[in-house]
Amino acid sequence: MSDIANRLRTELGVDVVPLDVPERNHHDWSGLPPVSPLALVRACSTEQVAIALRLCHETETPVVPQGGLTGISGGAHPVAGAVVLSLERMNRVLAFDAQMATLTVEAGCVLQTAQEAAQDGGLMLAVDLGARGSCTIGGVIATNAGGNQVLRYGMAREHVLGLEVVLADGTVLNSMNNMIKNNAGLDLKQLFIGTEGLMGIITKAVMRLQPRPSHSATAFCGCTDTAAAVAFLKRARADLGPALISFEVMWPSFYDLMRAGINAKHPLSEPHGVYVVIEAGGFDDNLRGQFENCLGVALEEGALNDAVIAASVREERELWAVREAVAEYGHILGPLTAFDVGLPLESIAEAVSRLEAEIAERWPGARALSYGHMGDSNLHLVVNVPQAGTDQPASALKTLVYGIVRDLGGTISAEHGIGAVKRDYLGYSRTEAEIDTMRRLKFTLDPRGILNPGKGFAP
Amino acid sequence: MSDIANRLRTELGVDVVPLDVPERNHHDWSGLPPVSPLALVRACSTEQVAIALRLCHETETPVVPQGGLTGISGGAHPVAGAVVLSLERMNRVLAFDAQMATLTVEAGCVLQTAQEAAQDGGLMLAVDLGARGSCTIGGVIATNAGGNQVLRYGMAREHVLGLEVVLADGTVLNSMNNMIKNNAGLDLKQLFIGTEGLMGIITKAVMRLQPRPSHSATAFCGCTDTAAAVAFLKRARADLGPALISFEVMWPSFYDLMRAGINAKHPLSEPHGVYVVIEAGGFDDNLRGQFENCLGVALEEGALNDAVIAASVREERELWAVREAVAEYGHILGPLTAFDVGLPLESIAEAVSRLEAEIAERWPGARALSYGHMGDSNLHLVVNVPQAGTDQPASALKTLVYGIVRDLGGTISAEHGIGAVKRDYLGYSRTEAEIDTMRRLKFTLDPRGILNPGKGFAP
Ligand SMILES: Cc1cc2nc3c(=O)[nH]c(=O)nc-3n(C[C@H](O)[C@H](O)[C@H](O)COP(=O)(O)OP(=O)(O)OC[C@H]3O[C@@H](n4cnc5c(N)ncnc54)[C@H](O)[C@@H]3O)c2cc1C
Ligand SMILES: Cc1cc2nc3c(=O)[nH]c(=O)nc-3n(C[C@H](O)[C@H](O)[C@H](O)COP(=O)(O)OP(=O)(O)OC[C@H]3O[C@@H](n4cnc5c(N)ncnc54)[C@H](O)[C@@H]3O)c2cc1C
Repeated sequence: MSDIANRLRTELGVDVVPLDVPERNHHDWSGLPPVSPLALVRACSTEQVAIALRLCHETETPVVPQGGLTGISGGAHPVAGAVVLSLERMNRVLAFDAQMATLTVEAGCVLQTAQEAAQDGGLMLAVDLGARGSCTIGGVIATNAGGNQVLRYGMAREHVLGLEVVLADGTVLNSMNNMIKNNAGLDLKQLFIGTEGLMGIITKAVMRLQPRPSHSATAFCGCTDTAAAVAFLKRARADLGPALISFEVMWPSFYDLMRAGINAKHPLSEPHGVYVVIEAGGFDDNLRGQFENCLGVALEEGALNDAVIAASVREERELWAVREAVAEYGHILGPLTAFDVGLPLESIAEAVSRLEAEIAERWPGARALSYGHMGDSNLHLVVNVPQAGTDQPASALKTLVYGIVRDLGGTISAEHGIGAVKRDYLGYSRTEAEIDTMRRLKFTLDPRGILNPGKGFAP
Repeated sequence: MSDIANRLRTELGVDVVPLDVPERNHHDWSGLPPVSPLALVRACSTEQVAIALRLCHETETPVVPQGGLTGISGGAHPVAGAVVLSLERMNRVLAFDAQMATLTVEAGCVLQTAQEAAQDGGLMLAVDLGARGSCTIGGVIATNAGGNQVLRYGMAREHVLGLEVVLADGTVLNSMNNMIKNNAGLDLKQLFIGTEGLMGIITKAVMRLQPRPSHSATAFCGCTDTAAAVAFLKRARADLGPALISFEVMWPSFYDLMRAGINAKHPLSEPHGVYVVIEAGGFDDNLRGQFENCLGVALEEGALNDAVIAASVREERELWAVREAVAEYGHILGPLTAFDVGLPLESIAEAVSRLEAEIAERWPGARALSYGHMGDSNLHLVVNVPQAGTDQPASALKTLVYGIVRDLGGTISAEHGIGAVKRDYLGYSRTEAEIDTMRRLKFTLDPRGILNPGKGFAP
C-alpha cells in the first residue's frame, strides 16, 4: 500500500479513497491496455478535490482526471504510479436560470442529465454527442468536444460561460461568470477548455443555453462527388443560415459497409459518389418550405443528384441510422484504428482519395472508411487491416495519415483531443514555438507537472 | 533624442520610425490627457514588429500597441517613456475564402474594410460597432469588442479562427488556423483575445464569416418597466431564435435627453417606462410575419405596451437614431464619465434605479443616462455633473458605480476592457486568485513586463 494512498485515505476517508481501484477506472474508451493506478479519489466536493491536489502537489504525485471515461484519445487513461481523480460523484445540477438562459452544474454531471435539465426548463443545451449518456460536462469541456451540431452551435468552448477550477497546488479559481459579455481581464477559463486536464481540474461550470427550435427537417442526399457535396454545403449555408444544424457526409467506403453491417435499407434507389445527411431546425412554420426550396435549388445547380426528405420522426431516425452506428464499428470491422482529423474544405476530396488509396496500397485488403462533419471541416477515418488481427499497425497508420494531413494543411485532432494516442504527433499540426509556449504556460500553472503527465503537450 | 529611438530608426528606417511622433498618437478615445511617447514605430510587416519587440525586450523598453485608437478604456493611451507600436499600416486584406467562409487580414485592417471585403464575396463579418470606420481588427480582437449583434453572433472572440502574434521577445507565433474545429493542444490564440496587448502583438488574423441574412425587420417598442422588457426579451428569444439580432434598451433618463438633443421625432405617441429597439434578420420570406407574431404575443402577454415596425430602410434608421447617437454625447451632455458594466438580468432593474438615485443624491442635478445591450446583460451609463465643469468627479463616480455593480454580482467591464481607466477596480470583478493567475501568465509570456505596462491586470 503506497504512502500517498494512505495519506489521501486518512484525509478523505475510505469511502472517497477506496481500498481497491475498480477495474472500470483502469482504462478509458481509447482501447489502450488497462493500467492499475496507485489510488482512486472519488471526490464529492470542490474541497475534496483541493485537498487531494494539495497532497499530490506536495508529494509530486501524478494525477489523472477522469470524467465519464468515454474519451477516445486516452486522456483519462491511467498512468502507472498516478492517482486517478474521478469527478463522477460531483454530478449535480446546481441551478437553472431561465432569464439568463444558463445551467450551472458540477463537473461530473452526465451530459444527458444536463440536457434534460435544460429541456425541463424549456431551453436547450446545444452540445450533443453519441456518448451523451455517459460522458460528463467536465470531460466535454476538457476535450472541447464537438458532435453533430457544431456547424450551428459551435464546440463546447462556445457553451461555457463560467468555470470553477482547482489548480495543481489546490488553489480554487472561481470564475463562475454567467454573463455573455465579461471583459474584465484575461478570460482564464479558456485555459482549461480543451486542455485535457493538464492545466487544472474543472469542478463546476456555467453553461449557456439556447432556445429550442420548434420545427425540424432532415434529408438523406446523394451527390456525384466530394466537390458537389462542398457546393451543396455552400448552398445550404447561404439559404438556410442558422437553420442549418448538421451537414454530415459519408463516402461509399463507409456507407456501403456500415449499411450492410447494420442491415439498413438504402433510402435512395441508386448509388452515389457521396452521401449527405442534412438537418435543419428553426422557429418558423415555414421551415420545411425553406428546406425544400434549398434542396430544389441544389438539385437544379447539380450539387445534388437525389434526395429523400423524412416525413416523420421515425423516418428521420432511419435516415440517420448508418451515420449513428458508431458503436457498431467494432462488431462490423473488428479491431480498428480511428482518426479524427480536420482539413480545409478544398483539400477534403484529395485527402479522402489519397488516404484510401495509400492505405490500400500499403496494406492490400485493408478497409478504410471515410465519413465526417463536413460542415466543420472534420473528417473521420476508421481503418481495419484484416490480416493484422488484433495487432493493427496503429503507429504506421498514424504516420501515414498524419503525414498526409500535414501536407494538406490540416489538423491531427478536430474534436477528440491529443491525449496519449496523438501526443507524439502534435508537431504535425503545431509549430515548435507553439508547443514550447504551451509547455511554458503549463509549467506556470503546474510547476511540478503533476496534472496528467504524458498527455497532450507534455514534454 | 533617446537611444532606443535611434536604434529603432537605424534598424527600421526613418519612414517606419519618424523623427516626430504625430499628435494623433499621443492619446486614444479615453479622454485621458495626451502623453508624448519616446518614439513611434509604424510597422509595415510582421518582421518589423518582431525586430522592434526584440530591441525593446533587450532594452526593457515599454511598448504600447496602437490600432485605430478608438478604445475607450485607455488601453492604447501612451505612457511616458514608452515606444508606441502602431499597426495601422498593416492594413491589407490578405485572402477571402468562400468555401471555408473566412477572411484573412493584417491586424491594422480597418473593421469596415474587412466588412466590405466579406460583403463583396457574398458573406458577412458579423462584428459591428459604431467605430467601424476607424477601429482595426487587431484592436477589435485585443479588446474582444462587442457591439449591437453580440446576442446573435457573439463577441469578437467567437469570430477569430486563427492569429499570428509576436511575443514580447520577438518570437513569431503562427496559429493561422482556418478551421472551425481544431483541438490540437492548448488553443493559444485565446490568450491574446481581449487582453489589450498585454500578452503579445497581433499581426494577422483569420476571421470567421457568416451567411448574410436576406430579410430584416426592426421595431421600436415601449414597455411599462424593466421587468416587462426582460419578459419581452425572453419571448423574443423563444420565438425568433437566431433571427433575434439586436435587443437594445433605453431608459427614459437616456432616451428623453438624447432625443431632445438630436431633435428626433418620438416614434410612439405616449411615454413609456423603458424603450426597446429590436431587430430581426433571417433567411426566409416569412421573417416579417414571424416578427409581427412575436410582437403580437408580447403585446398580449403585457410585456409590450406599444410598438412601431419600420416599413422602409429609412424608417429603420430613424428608429435606431437615438440609440446610435453615441458620438453626440459630448455635445449634448458636456464633459462626462462613461460606464460599460455587465449585470445579471435579474439585477438590471435594481441596478438602474439604484445607480440613478444614488448619483442624484450625491451630486444633485447630475445627469445619469442609462441604456444598454440588454440581450447581453450589458448596461451603459453616462454621467455628467454640470456643476463640476471639466473637472468631473470620475474617481468618486467609479467607486460608487463599481461598488453597486459588485454588490449585484456584475462585471466592471462588459465590452470595453480594463485598459488604464478601470485598472484599479479589477478587484471589484475578479478574485485575488484570478488576478494573481493573470499576472503569472503575463510574466510567462512577457517576463520583462514591456507590453503595455500599467494597463489591464498589471501589478
Ligand atoms: C460513442 C461515442 C461517441 C462520441 N462522439 C463524440 C463526438 O461526436 N464528438 C466529440 O468531440 N467526442 C465524441 N466522443 C468522445 C468523448 O465522448 C468526448 O471526448 C467526451 O467529451 C469525453 O467526456 P468524458 O466525461 O467521458 O471524459 P473522460 O474520457 O473521462 O476524459 C476526457 C479528458 O478530459 C479530462 N477530464 C475529464 N474530466 C475533467 C475535469 N473535470 N477536469 C479536468 N479534466 C477532465 C480527462 O483527464 C481526459 O483528458 C465520443 C465517444 C464515444 C464513446
Ligand atoms: C463611436 C464609438 C463606438 C464604439 N462602440 C463600441 C461597441 O459597440 N462595442 C465595443 O466593444 N467597443 C466599442 N467602442 C470601443 C472601440 O471601438 C473598440 O474597443 C475597438 O475594438 C478598438 O479598436 P482600435 O483599433 O481603435 O484599438 P485601439 O484603441 O487602438 O486599442 C485598443 C486596445 O487594443 C490594443 N491593441 C490594438 N491593436 C493591437 C494589436 N494589433 N495587438 C495587440 N494589441 C492591440 C491596444 O494596446 C489597446 O489596449 C466604440 C468606440 C467608439 C469611438
